[in-house]
Amino acid sequence: MKLFHVLKSQQFDRERLDYLCSLSTVVRKVAKSRAGSDFLRSRLSHRRAMLYFTQPSTRTFLSFLNACQILGIQTSEIRDPSTSSEYKGEDLKDALRTFSSYVDLIVMRTNREGVADRIADHLDATDRPIPVINAGSGKDQHPSQALLDVYTLHRSFQFKGGIDGKTIAMVGDLARGRTVRSLCYLMKNYEDVRLVFVSPHGFGMLPDLKEFLTKRSIAFEETDDLRDVLPRCDALYMTRVQDEHDVDDESHSFDADRFTLHYDDLARLREDAVIMHPLPRRQEIDRRIDGDSRAMYWRQARNGMWMRVAMIATIFDVAGEILDHAADVYTTSELRDVGP
Amino acid sequence: MKLFHVLKSQQFDRERLDYLCSLSTVVRKVAKSRAGSDFLRSRLSHRRAMLYFTQPSTRTFLSFLNACQILGIQTSEIRDPSTSSEYKGEDLKDALRTFSSYVDLIVMRTNREGVADRIADHLDATDRPIPVINAGSGKDQHPSQALLDVYTLHRSFQFKGGIDGKTIAMVGDLARGRTVRSLCYLMKNYEDVRLVFVSPHGFGMLPDLKEFLTKRSIAFEETDDLRDVLPRCDALYMTRVQDEHDVDDESHSFDADRFTLHYDDLARLREDAVIMHPLPRRQEIDRRIDGDSRAMYWRQARNGMWMRVAMIATIFDVAGEILDHAADVYTTSELRDVGP
Amino acid sequence: MKLFHVLKSQQFDRERLDYLCSLSTVVRKVAKSRAGSDFLRSRLSHRRAMLYFTQPSTRTFLSFLNACQILGIQTSEIRDPSTSSEYKGEDLKDALRTFSSYVDLIVMRTNREGVADRIADHLDATDRPIPVINAGSGKDQHPSQALLDVYTLHRSFQFKGGIDGKTIAMVGDLARGRTVRSLCYLMKNYEDVRLVFVSPHGFGMLPDLKEFLTKRSIAFEETDDLRDVLPRCDALYMTRVQDEHDVDDESHSFDADRFTLHYDDLARLREDAVIMHPLPRRQEIDRRIDGDSRAMYWRQARNGMWMRVAMIATIFDVAGEILDHAADVYTTSELRDVGP
Repeated sequence: MKLFHVLKSQQFDRERLDYLCSLSTVVRKVAKSRAGSDFLRSRLSHRRAMLYFTQPSTRTFLSFLNACQILGIQTSEIRDPSTSSEYKGEDLKDALRTFSSYVDLIVMRTNREGVADRIADHLDATDRPIPVINAGSGKDQHPSQALLDVYTLHRSFQFKGGIDGKTIAMVGDLARGRTVRSLCYLMKNYEDVRLVFVSPHGFGMLPDLKEFLTKRSIAFEETDDLRDVLPRCDALYMTRVQDEHDVDDESHSFDADRFTLHYDDLARLREDAVIMHPLPRRQEIDRRIDGDSRAMYWRQARNGMWMRVAMIATIFDVAGEILDHAADVYTTSELRDVGP
Repeated sequence: MKLFHVLKSQQFDRERLDYLCSLSTVVRKVAKSRAGSDFLRSRLSHRRAMLYFTQPSTRTFLSFLNACQILGIQTSEIRDPSTSSEYKGEDLKDALRTFSSYVDLIVMRTNREGVADRIADHLDATDRPIPVINAGSGKDQHPSQALLDVYTLHRSFQFKGGIDGKTIAMVGDLARGRTVRSLCYLMKNYEDVRLVFVSPHGFGMLPDLKEFLTKRSIAFEETDDLRDVLPRCDALYMTRVQDEHDVDDESHSFDADRFTLHYDDLARLREDAVIMHPLPRRQEIDRRIDGDSRAMYWRQARNGMWMRVAMIATIFDVAGEILDHAADVYTTSELRDVGP
Repeated sequence: MKLFHVLKSQQFDRERLDYLCSLSTVVRKVAKSRAGSDFLRSRLSHRRAMLYFTQPSTRTFLSFLNACQILGIQTSEIRDPSTSSEYKGEDLKDALRTFSSYVDLIVMRTNREGVADRIADHLDATDRPIPVINAGSGKDQHPSQALLDVYTLHRSFQFKGGIDGKTIAMVGDLARGRTVRSLCYLMKNYEDVRLVFVSPHGFGMLPDLKEFLTKRSIAFEETDDLRDVLPRCDALYMTRVQDEHDVDDESHSFDADRFTLHYDDLARLREDAVIMHPLPRRQEIDRRIDGDSRAMYWRQARNGMWMRVAMIATIFDVAGEILDHAADVYTTSELRDVGP
């Protein structure tokens, strides 16, 4: 499989998703032994990456950084825009072109929509184009988050028929949460998925996305009654209110308690359902639920690191070597079920 | 020797202290050759650590970072709490649990007391507990500093009967200096140590610690006359006024000059005494003293790096391999006396 | 060739410059293969460096960081002076002496003139002196920038008789631009170079530097007419207005448009001339010029990384090994012409 830039979740079809999910599970297995982790780390030890994170994001930053380290990639960080030389009046294209001349990969997260696309186009036109990964661009896209969510669903339903045919409830501030939006786009790749959007009035999924789902014949319904939805969903995707995007204190009217998974609610949830959350969490999930076997959100975070390893290995065309190595050392069934 | 979390200096008994001091000297010797430094770096190259330093601390941060690098550990840094996603309302336990899912070790320094303990407890209750090192928690503990201080005393008195029986003067703002407090706790492990607390009125050692010393039958005296103490101490531990903890400008009344080691004072100090300081220094030690053979504070800083290497090697159970390697390459006497 | 501290461009004579330029081209060639990059990275994998950048500088910082990574050097960063423990009242000499005790090399960039020299002197007087590289000190020196500029000229004129005899125009705010000043100092090492200073009234090259040139019999002229200069220069070195040094809004009177290379100007420039810029750029060079074969500024940035690799390899005395390795693998002509 070929992969260069990773810019939006729409670029991933079913074949690519299945490939990346399998590869994620393989690298996680390989990394468990000392020999395997040495093997992974020597794959890309001659490569260097820049993590350009001018929008604060500890979690995604750390996930990408550690994914690079697992593959032996050395990294440069820009995390604080104020230490950047942009204060000298340089434009972003110039800055990124210069930075790109030092490294082999740029992972970027910014406050503004479409920036990663524009930088990728700009570098493509130079004599030294390098891959660009969008690690979150304003409100529009966060493709690596969508991939790790799909991977979490994929693992959760691995021995239960896969993602096809499942009912996935998404709960919270759906209007402004880019993770749920990106995940919805990816659902076009699965058969008979049913989406349930659970949000208060004024925070529902935006029309453009509902239009997309209708065109793709992906079933969805909208409700504001979380309690009613619990018994009939396979996956419950909780999200927090996105009050950092408030313009006029909109979040004030968000009745968080009604869109919270309380400890008592567990009884209404199916035995084999999974609870997800992109984290950070506020009060959306009672902390006593953390120990429940259906709570998948901590693994979801760790899944993200492995999915990012898979993505970067594919970009630099070493995925084949890793799969070959794994096939030499492990049986097929060992590679399918690798634990947390 | 087994070690998992490093949370407080009280957890170290004499056997552990002796072991870590010897190991520190061995790793420093091994690191001197190219082959030895390659050996050390390949011990833990499959491990990753997170340095979570939300309280500013360049020195301790760098010491831990370089200790990790010496053992080949790859690191992630959080140094500025404002770039963290904590602004999204996440609590610290959630944040650290997520971070812990990417790495194999957390080294943390915070402004608040007891935080490292609470995080260690929290992670112990998960399905992927990892070791936590307290690199300074508010005013209460700074165990790795205490260990490096003990190591400095250990090295200084290595050929003079060890720490047992020595007189150690501690000078300055003893009420608010956590390094002297932590060091005092460790003195319970040595025989016949005598402590002399030299501080102005109102900045003396706190009652809880004096009570601890009394219970443990560790001799101590209190004075405000530095000049009088100089001729009879084996180690002189100078500290600065801790004015960052001022609530009501208390430090204004601290007569720094009387608790400063002036160049002229050197003549009163024994020929084989040692002068220590946890650094950073202000005016507590005249800069002309830096060249004196008794000035141990720069070595003390470097000792800290080696002690941290020893600590981390023990946590990850590779100390044995390092000691075996050293025994193959060096004689016992070569390993005892390794220079600065 | 021996090299320890790198403090000012004056310390480099013709022999050193030629050596470093050749070495830069060799390392860049060697790095192109996986085996070569592995070879480079294993040269200094036992070394650790500190990048002490209290003056913001993304570009120079990244260039040095990646140069270290290419040679396998592990790095510690101080990029934000506010996270440093200097707030505790420590002086810079003490701080750098402590930091130096953890690492093998300090690369430092500061706002103040002469700081790197003072730190180098200070460390030389200790029992563990380590090399110091000045990565820019206030308005006075930026030697690694001057070296990369010379290297860019060296490469550009490699098959056209070298730098000797060339006419180099420097354009913009020459009074306050330290890159052009440092480059001028290095011109003493070449024969028959002619400098043309193109700047508005009040922003011309300062008297001390013109005096230096006169003493060294280096021909120079001054003008404010860029259009007139274009047809007769071999290298056109564009710079931006240094308004961060404004005391009284001096830059307001700088007519930037007259000192800008417009797209139409290209026709007046010789076919074999080169256009340089230290970057970041504002409007000094029309972006449509970026694709012109004479535009050398992006390569110039990348040249900087290779020159820094050469410099550090020389400091740690591994340049010989690298040259030997290259001679084993490549022919002389392969090593001379390595592409972008």
